Amino acid sequence: MTTTTAHPFDTAISLSDNTNGGYVGQTTPEYANMVGPFGGVTAAAIVRAIERHPDRTGEPIALTVNYLAPVSDGAFDVAVRAVRTNRTNQHWIAEVSQDRGITTTATAVFGVRRDAWSDTELTMPDVPDPESTSHTTVPGPVPWMRNYDMHYVEGAVPTDAAESASSTTTLWVRQRPARTLDFPALSALTDVFYPRVFLRRGRMLPAGTISLTTYFHVDGAELAEQGTDYVLASAHAQRFARGYFDQTAQIWGRSGTLLATSHQIVYYKD
Amino acid sequence: MTTTTAHPFDTAISLSDNTNGGYVGQTTPEYANMVGPFGGVTAAAIVRAIERHPDRTGEPIALTVNYLAPVSDGAFDVAVRAVRTNRTNQHWIAEVSQDRGITTTATAVFGVRRDAWSDTELTMPDVPDPESTSHTTVPGPVPWMRNYDMHYVEGAVPTDAAESASSTTTLWVRQRPARTLDFPALSALTDVFYPRVFLRRGRMLPAGTISLTTYFHVDGAELAEQGTDYVLASAHAQRFARGYFDQTAQIWGRSGTLLATSHQIVYYKD
Repeated sequence: MTTTTAHPFDTAISLSDNTNGGYVGQTTPEYANMVGPFGGVTAAAIVRAIERHPDRTGEPIALTVNYLAPVSDGAFDVAVRAVRTNRTNQHWIAEVSQDRGITTTATAVFGVRRDAWSDTELTMPDVPDPESTSHTTVPGPVPWMRNYDMHYVEGAVPTDAAESASSTTTLWVRQRPARTLDFPALSALTDVFYPRVFLRRGRMLPAGTISLTTYFHVDGAELAEQGTDYVLASAHAQRFARGYFDQTAQIWGRSGTLLATSHQIVYYKD
Repeated sequence: MTTTTAHPFDTAISLSDNTNGGYVGQTTPEYANMVGPFGGVTAAAIVRAIERHPDRTGEPIALTVNYLAPVSDGAFDVAVRAVRTNRTNQHWIAEVSQDRGITTTATAVFGVRRDAWSDTELTMPDVPDPESTSHTTVPGPVPWMRNYDMHYVEGAVPTDAAESASSTTTLWVRQRPARTLDFPALSALTDVFYPRVFLRRGRMLPAGTISLTTYFHVDGAELAEQGTDYVLASAHAQRFARGYFDQTAQIWGRSGTLLATSHQIVYYKD
């Protein structure tokens, strides 16, 4: 007899139909953050909801997720709606809600890629392979981080209370256990960075993502070519301004494909 | 007798109450683009609508505007709603619609800035003053560009059919006639760049912004300190991928204040 166990990520973004024409999901302890679930898994559940919606055409081009309030442990509803379908793209709005109200809003653009002149202008950072970079032991208080194999190249979580002049973190990362990369997983990976203000200040302090925007640069076939391999994720802040900082990030395939660029605005208290 | 004429930008984002609890605006020929109005002025009208809403607290922190379809000449409705008000921030959703349906969706975060450790990590480009940079004569077919004084430092609109290896454009820009900088004007300025693909390919081709996200790094008082002076706007693309490219941009005050960082995904055909 053979039994199959679902990957914890697939369990975390598993959705069933609710009675309102939308979907219902369930938080899982594996993807818990300090308060509520990891923001990346909520983004992934929204992408999954749109992907399985019968009106959906094309694949993710852009995604903005706004974090209004933490999702409480338990069931959550995901409502998604195609607002307009154009010839080559489709605009969606989405809301995640629980008994106490809306926790998350989102907009997304799905689209079809065509043959067109293409070029990657950005250069992938020149870094050692993941195999020659040490694996980071998972910190205790953040359960979701245990779902990722992380090999920091630059800007690891500060442990020595030393301030850093740079907010740049670059790491090789993949899901643990290994899982073939798809759009929900890539969406989650764009939020895999600990808050940049920790690195600058050399310590943890209250911080949380308010809004996350990701642009996808590959189609599903190109994404699947990454298989279960590590991707290189790099992020830095541009300005920390009286309680809010921005972060801009790139996610690269090992062979140099720029899979996604992503941006977020983060609340902090210091 | 004294008569006062409204600035064309204020006319373009002027809103009155409609009969549905929202606002109604009117396109103006001054802000017309090739098809429909300049995307920046639509973003500005949304910011203005939230600013004047009685539920609004704080000032803009983040804004995402999705361009579903061109706004047709004439009246348009702007519906805005505060989805959640937290202690220091407030989440909004917005829709612009006309008789034929929704043309624009948006989400915004407004918030209050507090005393906190702050730093600008990015360095302002070292460029000559606007006064020592030549003024660009306005191209004929794009009316909205006549509302800006533009002094290109790098990456002007290509006129010689030469491809460029870089997609970077940097320019000094201010509203024409001069007008004190505020959040609607700053929101519009984030979309002041012609499409990056024109620069790379050395020619114009079909292209349009699909989704625009801006993070604001100053409060209203800091913004007003800019007065009517030029700001330095710089933008570049990271990847052009089969019909969609991203753009990332910074808007700097002359004295080195990073006012906003902004990102967009753009459709192109080549």
